[in-house]
Amino acid sequence: MPKIAEEHAAMLTYPRPVARLIEAVRKLPGVGPKTAQRYAMHLLRADEADARELAEAILELKRSVHPCRLCGNYSDEEMCSICRDGTRSSSSLCVVSYVRELMAIERSGEFAGRYHVLGGVLSPADGIGPDQLAIGRLIERVRDEGVTEVILAMSPSVEGDATALYLGRLLAPVPGLEVTRLASGLPAGADLDYADQVTIAAALSGRRKV
Amino acid sequence: MPKIAEEHAAMLTYPRPVARLIEAVRKLPGVGPKTAQRYAMHLLRADEADARELAEAILELKRSVHPCRLCGNYSDEEMCSICRDGTRSSSSLCVVSYVRELMAIERSGEFAGRYHVLGGVLSPADGIGPDQLAIGRLIERVRDEGVTEVILAMSPSVEGDATALYLGRLLAPVPGLEVTRLASGLPAGADLDYADQVTIAAALSGRRKV
Repeated sequence: MPKIAEEHAAMLTYPRPVARLIEAVRKLPGVGPKTAQRYAMHLLRADEADARELAEAILELKRSVHPCRLCGNYSDEEMCSICRDGTRSSSSLCVVSYVRELMAIERSGEFAGRYHVLGGVLSPADGIGPDQLAIGRLIERVRDEGVTEVILAMSPSVEGDATALYLGRLLAPVPGLEVTRLASGLPAGADLDYADQVTIAAALSGRRKV
Repeated sequence: MPKIAEEHAAMLTYPRPVARLIEAVRKLPGVGPKTAQRYAMHLLRADEADARELAEAILELKRSVHPCRLCGNYSDEEMCSICRDGTRSSSSLCVVSYVRELMAIERSGEFAGRYHVLGGVLSPADGIGPDQLAIGRLIERVRDEGVTEVILAMSPSVEGDATALYLGRLLAPVPGLEVTRLASGLPAGADLDYADQVTIAAALSGRRKV
């Protein structure tokens, strides 16, 4: 009995604050319209306290988390917890492209040295050359901190390999410095961030001279 | 050369504000640790303005969106946009369990009447009886608003069917009121070969003359 159907156009009107939230949530990675709507509906039903906690956690994140002065890891203090940790070796320096890669290596529990976050990979097509990465700081640290081994831990991608090759050449003349690269136990094209701990551990223990 | 490995335990220490956000984000539906971390990393890299917009959208949502006084739909005013819309028929009332079902029907563009949101389904096992749903208000509205047809639009689940059955009996004595239920059967585009037995049974028992 479709007598009420008529030519009523589809005009789904969310209350404006709901539409606003859906639009903001859609900027999160991998969130499409359906997921955004689901999150919004959940937050509408959620406890006031839970929703407020989420909002305030976002605000606090942006207010108080900054790159570590030394290595570029995220920190809510001037130096990150790893750089502040006196039990960690400063002779071994692990160079990563992104903080999420640092975190992936930390999760493996196999590395007790320090890190250096480049902030990206060399990618001429995107206008990212050596000057756009924290390479000058890396050279300074290698010189000043008594580093005896640099582990190049870029993801095994085209850009990651190019970045490692560039750094390997740059660091080759430093006397007494061993430069290594994570072993290719990682499948080609993989994202280091998504590798499992065992694979990361294997790659670490199998690292070779460049 | 695993000389630096030692017995260093996995001690991934996020800055506290990052851990706080990950914990808050994990309360969203379907968000596990990986996704929560990805959202947090994204927000760390995101523009200050985008992150702030998301936080403020959440706060505004909880501050200004409430159930419509009449039907229970979400609204940022006392009455929702559907109840305020004078062009919509008040003689046809579509009863749904949840607001998301109301939205699904609105998206179809096939209904030009009004809605009533029960706020759930009858589920004695979860302690949800008639008193926990907006059933008293439904009876009042049927009486007061000149309703001539009530469409029971619960999802075709065990609880949805029980709820529809209950409401059907409750509304049966109202003179001149037609009570209908959404047709149950094969979804558009479905492959009969892959349909489940219950759906096929429903499609058969609800068959119509061509």
